[in-house]
Amino acid sequence: MRTALYPGSFDPVTYGHMDIMERAIKVFDRLIVTVARDVGSKEPTFTVEERVEMIEACAKQWEEVTVGSFAGLLVDCARACGVHTVIRGLRAVTDFEYEFQMALTNRSLDPDFECIYLMPSKDYTYLSSTMVKEIARLGGDISPFVPPLVEGKLREKFRS
Amino acid sequence: MRTALYPGSFDPVTYGHMDIMERAIKVFDRLIVTVARDVGSKEPTFTVEERVEMIEACAKQWEEVTVGSFAGLLVDCARACGVHTVIRGLRAVTDFEYEFQMALTNRSLDPDFECIYLMPSKDYTYLSSTMVKEIARLGGDISPFVPPLVEGKLREKFRS
Amino acid sequence: MRTALYPGSFDPVTYGHMDIMERAIKVFDRLIVTVARDVGSKEPTFTVEERVEMIEACAKQWEEVTVGSFAGLLVDCARACGVHTVIRGLRAVTDFEYEFQMALTNRSLDPDFECIYLMPSKDYTYLSSTMVKEIARLGGDISPFVPPLVEGKLREKFRS
Amino acid sequence: MRTALYPGSFDPVTYGHMDIMERAIKVFDRLIVTVARDVGSKEPTFTVEERVEMIEACAKQWEEVTVGSFAGLLVDCARACGVHTVIRGLRAVTDFEYEFQMALTNRSLDPDFECIYLMPSKDYTYLSSTMVKEIARLGGDISPFVPPLVEGKLREKFRS
Amino acid sequence: MRTALYPGSFDPVTYGHMDIMERAIKVFDRLIVTVARDVGSKEPTFTVEERVEMIEACAKQWEEVTVGSFAGLLVDCARACGVHTVIRGLRAVTDFEYEFQMALTNRSLDPDFECIYLMPSKDYTYLSSTMVKEIARLGGDISPFVPPLVEGKLREKFRS
Amino acid sequence: MRTALYPGSFDPVTYGHMDIMERAIKVFDRLIVTVARDVGSKEPTFTVEERVEMIEACAKQWEEVTVGSFAGLLVDCARACGVHTVIRGLRAVTDFEYEFQMALTNRSLDPDFECIYLMPSKDYTYLSSTMVKEIARLGGDISPFVPPLVEGKLREKFRS
Repeated sequence: MRTALYPGSFDPVTYGHMDIMERAIKVFDRLIVTVARDVGSKEPTFTVEERVEMIEACAKQWEEVTVGSFAGLLVDCARACGVHTVIRGLRAVTDFEYEFQMALTNRSLDPDFECIYLMPSKDYTYLSSTMVKEIARLGGDISPFVPPLVEGKLREKFRS
Repeated sequence: MRTALYPGSFDPVTYGHMDIMERAIKVFDRLIVTVARDVGSKEPTFTVEERVEMIEACAKQWEEVTVGSFAGLLVDCARACGVHTVIRGLRAVTDFEYEFQMALTNRSLDPDFECIYLMPSKDYTYLSSTMVKEIARLGGDISPFVPPLVEGKLREKFRS
Repeated sequence: MRTALYPGSFDPVTYGHMDIMERAIKVFDRLIVTVARDVGSKEPTFTVEERVEMIEACAKQWEEVTVGSFAGLLVDCARACGVHTVIRGLRAVTDFEYEFQMALTNRSLDPDFECIYLMPSKDYTYLSSTMVKEIARLGGDISPFVPPLVEGKLREKFRS
Repeated sequence: MRTALYPGSFDPVTYGHMDIMERAIKVFDRLIVTVARDVGSKEPTFTVEERVEMIEACAKQWEEVTVGSFAGLLVDCARACGVHTVIRGLRAVTDFEYEFQMALTNRSLDPDFECIYLMPSKDYTYLSSTMVKEIARLGGDISPFVPPLVEGKLREKFRS
Repeated sequence: MRTALYPGSFDPVTYGHMDIMERAIKVFDRLIVTVARDVGSKEPTFTVEERVEMIEACAKQWEEVTVGSFAGLLVDCARACGVHTVIRGLRAVTDFEYEFQMALTNRSLDPDFECIYLMPSKDYTYLSSTMVKEIARLGGDISPFVPPLVEGKLREKFRS
Repeated sequence: MRTALYPGSFDPVTYGHMDIMERAIKVFDRLIVTVARDVGSKEPTFTVEERVEMIEACAKQWEEVTVGSFAGLLVDCARACGVHTVIRGLRAVTDFEYEFQMALTNRSLDPDFECIYLMPSKDYTYLSSTMVKEIARLGGDISPFVPPLVEGKLREKFRS
């Protein structure tokens, strides 16, 4: 059985992430979406539990998908899951540079680590969680970018 | 009458912005320079009133230019002004990616939204407000980058 | 009356070019689409007359659009038309570099020369005439990329 | 059984291609390396038969790998093989742009078409068949870039 | 005697920086590594004294290398040292843009200012101090990226 | 005595090349400008003798500069001159990628090979010999880009 890990901060999950999940399960038998507890220096907008729940709700139609979370190094998370293949969505140039850096660093830490890149639909090539939150904060319509459940959570967050 | 919006944080206005204004009024009858009240997570160096005043002083030789400010989404500001065309200056590659993202997102929010990109003089291709402030903070000469009025304001700011 | 020039090789015209024309006539009163007779070292697939005719047929619904051709320098063509503003569509990063080079060079040749960049619909961000011809040559379906008239001409060209 | 296609011109196969093959068979049960008969406007250095033979010799240690060739559109080749997943190696920025264009075009032609990108070892990030041929032509040592068999063939080619 | 300045935040020094130093002293008779006291808005992980000490320890095998620190503008530091040539290591695309901006700005401030770019070994093309600190913080093995002394200091820092 | 090689096709030499030469002789005691006899698949516009003569005439004010030519691999030319340091001018992003490839390949061929990158004046950041020839061919004014002697030669070339 082919299993892959799809790590990210998913703060929150967007249609872009869901597009990648849908593509990934055509190639893999099982996909473990794994939410980074720790997103570097920035404070996440949603708690790790909220982020996991939103993905679980949005991905419940795909039985191949399991959702979890991790702290620490991605290579350690992958090893703990017994998985060597990690899925990443590709977007813009700056992304690409960052992905190169991340992939080569993770390979230094674990030579078996393999990154697989999928290209989202052209509708989501420029979509990011950060931009969605910015639009929500300014009161704009985010329904083209995130599922209704996430839209509701974002509205709550930015009303308070 | 052709009107365009030139939005930005203008914190503060530089010769690069003025170069774009001068080019824009060759193409449009009227240009509304509109200062974003809200510049995301960072605290602006100058208040929105100071930023508007500096632009007004620097652009007073062009009667086609009006200066204002906005809060919220750019597409809402454009709609409120009855304007669908937005001017942007193009600089480096990273800029370009960001512009792509911004333009496509704004079109999702308002299909009539149109972005028009102008290329600054090669003297200003790498100029940014952030860099000018950094040089001012470190006591360097900023006269090649900003008009004398702005230079004075920056010196005041960084002396205190 | 605001007039702009939209130069290119248009070998052949695609939906991407037509998208830019449609955006340009929202900003300008008149648009002169001007076909480069001379496309550098490569031999064009269609003669300049064929390329002009195809654009005329495809753009006949827009009365603001006139179609012509030019040989020699773009700045001389612009001057001869009494127009200083040139429209360009922006696509990928490599494009962007080329556009920077072209704009700055043309400004060296004529300081009044102004380039205005428009961003095509995300459906056409990666579309090029070269790619369309390659697909046609290999017998693929090009109907999502070019109008039916151009599709017919390309099929004829690659059957013979 | 998960099968993927690895298309290319392979003119000739390099250690960079072999690195990608080795990574691909960790993820897929079967890999069909498929040599493009037709490499656009340029004349290939090796015939399609020579290119297939070299890959077969270099990949004989991996039983998961089959080698073939194709003419026409990649999506038609994929459909004929009953495969929807195509492997690509990622290298530099210009590559990346090209890959975006190719992936989105192929999806227009066949919505089931999926591209999967793998990152080669950092030793091969900047390696290309073109560069290897250039060095061989100028009499340089190409042993770090291609297997001994290919090295021999290249020497023969450029001696004659 | 040819002298060059190698400025940076070195927070902390990595094998990538040491690779650049080793290349620089093949070209210059003397290299002044100069640590920026002030690293913009972020708080450095190590004090300037700690950063200087670590470089001194790591570079003690090269007598051509002197280590110091500076506050304020790089061009003023260069002038104070009587040096006009500054060494920079080149990494990824985003770097490159930043370097262009920095070089052209510094030339505006001092026309004699010259930047010289060296390319690190391909093993360090994607290495950064930030990434090393992130891995150390998450408990990963950083021995491939920094000398043992720096590794020890980073472990201490992130244990406390 | 510090010597560096400045290789290129110089077909023909431009003010951009001369700007790099002037910067290089501030850092090196001697600069050997070396013209590639063989410029890949394209036929050069000027013979290698013409290209050498034009550089000699344009660089005669700098006694540090010697002009020669080479066939074959750059690393072999460098070795034959007893020089390990090669000067390159940096221009746009696409250049940068190519330079990365070239530098890393040459290091594979000769570990002592060192590339040093200099940034031209912002006036020449987007200048290339190809573009200058294109403008000359179309009858445009090339005096801002090349010295009068080269201008004359280009005019002769494109009149005939």
